[in-house]
Amino acid sequence: MLGWMRDLFPLHRAQTGVGVRKTLRYLQHHLPLEVHEVASGTTVFDWTIPEEWHIRDAFIADSKGQRIVDYRQCNLHVASNSQPVCQKLSYAELEPHLHWLTEPPSLDTVPYRTMFFRQEWGFCVSQRMLDRLKTDPAEKFTVVIDATFSPGSLSYGEAILPGQSRETILLYAHCCHPSLANDNLSGIVVATMLGKQLVKRAKQQPLRRTYRIVFAPATIGAITWLAANQADLPQVYAGLILTLLGSSGPFIYKKSRRGATVIDRAIEVLWRELDNQGRTIPFAPWGYDERQFGAPGFDLPVGCLMRTTPSEFSEYHTSADNLEKIQAQTLQETLKTLQQLLTILESNDLPVNQSPFGEPRLGPRGLYRPYGADDSLGRFQEAVLWILNLADGDHDLLDICQQGQLPWKLVSLAAEALRQQGLIKSVD
Amino acid sequence: MLGWMRDLFPLHRAQTGVGVRKTLRYLQHHLPLEVHEVASGTTVFDWTIPEEWHIRDAFIADSKGQRIVDYRQCNLHVASNSQPVCQKLSYAELEPHLHWLTEPPSLDTVPYRTMFFRQEWGFCVSQRMLDRLKTDPAEKFTVVIDATFSPGSLSYGEAILPGQSRETILLYAHCCHPSLANDNLSGIVVATMLGKQLVKRAKQQPLRRTYRIVFAPATIGAITWLAANQADLPQVYAGLILTLLGSSGPFIYKKSRRGATVIDRAIEVLWRELDNQGRTIPFAPWGYDERQFGAPGFDLPVGCLMRTTPSEFSEYHTSADNLEKIQAQTLQETLKTLQQLLTILESNDLPVNQSPFGEPRLGPRGLYRPYGADDSLGRFQEAVLWILNLADGDHDLLDICQQGQLPWKLVSLAAEALRQQGLIKSVD
Amino acid sequence: MLGWMRDLFPLHRAQTGVGVRKTLRYLQHHLPLEVHEVASGTTVFDWTIPEEWHIRDAFIADSKGQRIVDYRQCNLHVASNSQPVCQKLSYAELEPHLHWLTEPPSLDTVPYRTMFFRQEWGFCVSQRMLDRLKTDPAEKFTVVIDATFSPGSLSYGEAILPGQSRETILLYAHCCHPSLANDNLSGIVVATMLGKQLVKRAKQQPLRRTYRIVFAPATIGAITWLAANQADLPQVYAGLILTLLGSSGPFIYKKSRRGATVIDRAIEVLWRELDNQGRTIPFAPWGYDERQFGAPGFDLPVGCLMRTTPSEFSEYHTSADNLEKIQAQTLQETLKTLQQLLTILESNDLPVNQSPFGEPRLGPRGLYRPYGADDSLGRFQEAVLWILNLADGDHDLLDICQQGQLPWKLVSLAAEALRQQGLIKSVD
Repeated sequence: MLGWMRDLFPLHRAQTGVGVRKTLRYLQHHLPLEVHEVASGTTVFDWTIPEEWHIRDAFIADSKGQRIVDYRQCNLHVASNSQPVCQKLSYAELEPHLHWLTEPPSLDTVPYRTMFFRQEWGFCVSQRMLDRLKTDPAEKFTVVIDATFSPGSLSYGEAILPGQSRETILLYAHCCHPSLANDNLSGIVVATMLGKQLVKRAKQQPLRRTYRIVFAPATIGAITWLAANQADLPQVYAGLILTLLGSSGPFIYKKSRRGATVIDRAIEVLWRELDNQGRTIPFAPWGYDERQFGAPGFDLPVGCLMRTTPSEFSEYHTSADNLEKIQAQTLQETLKTLQQLLTILESNDLPVNQSPFGEPRLGPRGLYRPYGADDSLGRFQEAVLWILNLADGDHDLLDICQQGQLPWKLVSLAAEALRQQGLIKSVD
Repeated sequence: MLGWMRDLFPLHRAQTGVGVRKTLRYLQHHLPLEVHEVASGTTVFDWTIPEEWHIRDAFIADSKGQRIVDYRQCNLHVASNSQPVCQKLSYAELEPHLHWLTEPPSLDTVPYRTMFFRQEWGFCVSQRMLDRLKTDPAEKFTVVIDATFSPGSLSYGEAILPGQSRETILLYAHCCHPSLANDNLSGIVVATMLGKQLVKRAKQQPLRRTYRIVFAPATIGAITWLAANQADLPQVYAGLILTLLGSSGPFIYKKSRRGATVIDRAIEVLWRELDNQGRTIPFAPWGYDERQFGAPGFDLPVGCLMRTTPSEFSEYHTSADNLEKIQAQTLQETLKTLQQLLTILESNDLPVNQSPFGEPRLGPRGLYRPYGADDSLGRFQEAVLWILNLADGDHDLLDICQQGQLPWKLVSLAAEALRQQGLIKSVD
Repeated sequence: MLGWMRDLFPLHRAQTGVGVRKTLRYLQHHLPLEVHEVASGTTVFDWTIPEEWHIRDAFIADSKGQRIVDYRQCNLHVASNSQPVCQKLSYAELEPHLHWLTEPPSLDTVPYRTMFFRQEWGFCVSQRMLDRLKTDPAEKFTVVIDATFSPGSLSYGEAILPGQSRETILLYAHCCHPSLANDNLSGIVVATMLGKQLVKRAKQQPLRRTYRIVFAPATIGAITWLAANQADLPQVYAGLILTLLGSSGPFIYKKSRRGATVIDRAIEVLWRELDNQGRTIPFAPWGYDERQFGAPGFDLPVGCLMRTTPSEFSEYHTSADNLEKIQAQTLQETLKTLQQLLTILESNDLPVNQSPFGEPRLGPRGLYRPYGADDSLGRFQEAVLWILNLADGDHDLLDICQQGQLPWKLVSLAAEALRQQGLIKSVD
């Protein structure tokens, strides 16, 4: 995954254009990803797909022609979606278009800014560059952004892995940031690897639920996907926004709007399995695209998984969010935890007891541990009894797992044994 | 307000009769108050309007004709609604009709008692008077209560300030106590001043909701008002019993029966705005007229606001509850707090998002703060986002204010901005 | 009750057969108990009534004919429902059929085991016996279980005490254990005494609710009773499994499956009356027959009352659970507490206020304490006011009692007074 990040890091992703398209084409080597193009001018709910932004070059050069700020050195220098410009300006004229960090971690750190949907242009500079620009108030700088806006399309990628059921598990990573690593190449590669493994697994045995893995620009991309898939939204069983997953730190789950949906309860179980190493924070209508999935017209069971929050991640939206901050081991750990979560989501179920009048005979079905042989009932039998007792159509296996404070594996095994014996059936 | 209290203090208010009528006539100078007269004998639910009680004089005089207890000195001396009496009695014969405080704050403190709906008579005396009466067991006292009961009516006053909506905010103060200041001249003058200010404000811009300000005797008056207005009761949006508001102390709110109605939630927000200086106590079916509004057949959203409770107010129902205990500043503070509450109630709303599919574009509507320009979103934008997210018809602005832990002013401003942009509509 | 326990202790009760039948016949001297026989082979939900097990003798004797383990000494020695056997076996061959305690309280303590529904045989032995059996590996023991399985029936006993209402209070004690005292002769004799007293009381004044007192073998017996009475189950108002009630310790109530039914709330009130000496534990789908009554197809309001739990009772299912552990005083205390509970259950009610529009006039109905005569309202009047306020058909007297934190007696008296005055009616 770190290798993929290295390949993708230099690309200049923005909300539209070449950078996203190249990124998606790269991911197609690993996933059956379909790339969707939605034409500029298309209405998506309250929004309209904008023209594509293409950038070729951008710089601020002094009168000797020396580039003080050079887009070719770092694509963060030009604010995304900047209008084109070609002027000679003094520092005083230039300053309103400059962005810098007031408390930078180093003299060379550059912020990330976007002018998306605003008719402006801007440069993002380091403290060192700012000092140089300020030196001579009389100096006239050549300021160039060689960019164009032209009709085109917004691109997003989606891999659909069909399962036996149309119930859908959604994994979503935004892919509109230029050379930033944790936000969100980390989410992109983890989602890709998860998808790759699901494809592999599907060859051995059919997936039970359908998986949709989506890579789209933030906000406008999520809204575009929601508009394109409105008829399918009732099938969304659980979903997760994946972001900030490459730097070490405890897992942080931001709840879905309703707060007690399948994904929220699955994470509760997962945190218990991880000895409460994970942390859950409440839903708020800002942050990542969970705010779009959680808009009142959708109200989908979609939360957000991170290992740090934007406000706690001091490198957030700066050139310091680079590959040096990413550990291969952290990515692996994230992957493993998400695999564990998908196992839970894949095997969750709404069981209905087929023999609900008293306890059915467990002995002849091989589900009984001789009574009195031990002081405590075996935990497997506890799981069997809890499932039978709560399999009334109002409790899914996640509820039962929490009610009995049982390990998921045991609940899952016991449910399978009961299913094989015809004692429970699943409601789908 | 303190001036009004001084004017009204000497009047002998009882459940019916001249005292209440004079009080209401006085208030008519400040409020468009209609005085309603409900004839004796009228059935009001389980009750019947009694005959009017008129008192001219009452005293206990010794054999030399000297008045030891004299109604002309203090109208508390005769128990309200006492039967007439004119007898010569020894102390032993008199004692069953005497009421005194067992632990009086001073030798001159007199309790307040009422014989309402009981066929009895009584005198309320100070310790000093009691001692004099007891001195000579052989003494025969002349005991006179020159009172009559006669067909008449029960009086209550009501000012209706019509708003654009029929949803009604009810302010209610009982007006049946003789010369007691905190209980309840304080409630009467605060309600009057609030009403006066609403009338003034209505001249500048129409009131959104309808206000009804009611002055009526406790219990029988509340029941009479409820009987007369039964068809309008579903319009009661929020109501408050006002009492014990003139002595300093933290605000105390006693919840409505249901405990989570608009008034209860508005007070929750108010307490937060007041840095939790206010206190909330649960509903109980005794106390003031919230018990009538909260009877199971009505179950109205009406609570009670006080600055002390009867049990904590040591002067309660004694002659020590006089004007000396009332501070002008406390009345002002009470007024200000109630103004704040009315502002909240007036601007509360059940908004419905008109663009609920994803976040609408805020930028072109002037509701967007450039993303990334600051580490934290501005709180105004937080309010905008919370309202949009929760405007699903299940959450009113009070709910949203609490969910986002936002200042009311911000929620109110943000809602207004969203309304002007057509992004939310109110359900009425 | 201790006398009854002494009489019943020696009988060898098992799931079927002579022991249970003799036990029920004995109880018929004290209760109008009908004994039901359900024929072997009858289907009861998922189960089938097994053949009867009859045992005449069982022993392990050494080659000199000396009985080392002798059923005639203690009926726990043979595992209940053991297959017949008559063999000569070495210790090595015998061992898989032996059961002993790994940490016995004494060298003579014997465990209790059952082979119910298993095609096996077994002996339960003390440490001392085990040591003797192990002494000579070459020794051949004569191993005899002289038992038969034959078509017959499963027996259970039930006393039905009809009340004015079909709403049923169920008392249930399992009666399938051999010579064990606390588990469950204690439950059997307490249930019998409660029934006896109810019969006596019914002669003086009709019972309001119907009582059913059931003695049946655990699991199969409960399921049999449930199958036989399926049409009547909706009438079950509250039920209690009675067990482990003879050894001193705080009362422990295990909740019904739903956890907030009449029985659960009655116990809450009872614990408050007992100054919180009782303890409540959550429902779990194992333990005693509450698991059958709480199966999802029934979900009945039935909990379990104990004074120790199986896991806390160190003598559980061993020969140490004998009459020495039982105190007459403890049984009396248990009886008294259950009488208190039955008083609560018998007088609980769903009252509806017949004068719900404001407070009705209490004075003329003798329900009023003069207002102002005392600082606090009398608690009787508190009860009157709480009942009137909450008598909306959604709160029964148990709810009202808890809401007002009132003694049950007061609530019960106030309800009776209100009923006599026509102010409330009961919904049945």
